[in-house]
Amino acid sequence: MKLHWSPRSPFVRKVMVFAHETGLVDRLTCMRTVVAMKAPNADLLPDNPLSKIPTLVLDDGTPLYDSAVICEYLDTLHDRTRLFPTEGPVRWTALRRQALGDGFLDLLLLWRYERERSPPSQILIDAFATKYRATMMSLEHEATALERTAFGIGHIAIGCSLSYLDFRFADLNWRNGYPQIAAWHVSFALRPSAKATEAVEG
Amino acid sequence: MKLHWSPRSPFVRKVMVFAHETGLVDRLTCMRTVVAMKAPNADLLPDNPLSKIPTLVLDDGTPLYDSAVICEYLDTLHDRTRLFPTEGPVRWTALRRQALGDGFLDLLLLWRYERERSPPSQILIDAFATKYRATMMSLEHEATALERTAFGIGHIAIGCSLSYLDFRFADLNWRNGYPQIAAWHVSFALRPSAKATEAVEG
Repeated sequence: MKLHWSPRSPFVRKVMVFAHETGLVDRLTCMRTVVAMKAPNADLLPDNPLSKIPTLVLDDGTPLYDSAVICEYLDTLHDRTRLFPTEGPVRWTALRRQALGDGFLDLLLLWRYERERSPPSQILIDAFATKYRATMMSLEHEATALERTAFGIGHIAIGCSLSYLDFRFADLNWRNGYPQIAAWHVSFALRPSAKATEAVEG
Repeated sequence: MKLHWSPRSPFVRKVMVFAHETGLVDRLTCMRTVVAMKAPNADLLPDNPLSKIPTLVLDDGTPLYDSAVICEYLDTLHDRTRLFPTEGPVRWTALRRQALGDGFLDLLLLWRYERERSPPSQILIDAFATKYRATMMSLEHEATALERTAFGIGHIAIGCSLSYLDFRFADLNWRNGYPQIAAWHVSFALRPSAKATEAVEG
């Protein structure tokens, strides 16, 4: 399978963490694909007209996106413990957590874009900051439950969003005031799948 | 169940179309909830720290989001034909189509926000327009396959995104140049679920 990939996209990282956790990394051929909000990639559009990564292309040419769909598809290709619970409340909790991590990343990507604009919209930046604080508070409240739930797609999405704070929002010092989710994130960052996929400035 | 709802949110509409199709409308108590990109709703943050709608709150207080998670959850509550295929290629096609419709809506919401800024970023608006055209071309190519596939979540997401073009981007005259997907959309718009949930300016 071919994966439209970039070393610093947090959504790509989500798929790569997933592939490491499930032993599928060797099945993926990563193709460096550059995308930016203001510069659609013409080579990517035939596989994904929204010009977003990750986009997976199956061996028969079928494209799959977004990261949630790719991860759930990959979950059917391995024999380890499933990372998407198949039914019941644990499934809805895991999918809600994934939506929280993914939505947090969407917010952070827009925030990063906005603060580099000239001039930025202060009202928009204030709104992003309010949602950031609400999300951190929500994660702080959920940290114990995260620890007690079998590791899965929700943990991966939330872990990648917090790691993205370290990568692009170091100035927030996000651990201050949120000790429980910070402690949980230590265990996430120590997983081989997280260490193998760390984003580096370049 | 309580649904954080608004009459003009296209993602809320997706859930409402889904609820009509599956006979679950009477199970939802719709609570008018106003959100805007630059104005987080403090009353919504405890249920969804990202301040996005739709957000569903189960009778035991458990929140569920985003629209994809809500729809898949609702699909377990009825005895009609499932709108999420449970496995195999038809599932991945349906989920990829949902991601296309949802991603298209995300793009259109950002585009609408951008064109109302003063000054707007022309490079960003050009990028949105490029992705819009690529998405329309992709949908035009997929129109026949959409007609031939059992109606499901992919159709609902794509149908709601095209209807949003009529609602907020009438100036695009999107049907020009895309006759096959325009013909498919006629059949979508005629469904009772679509007619019951049409957005009106207010």
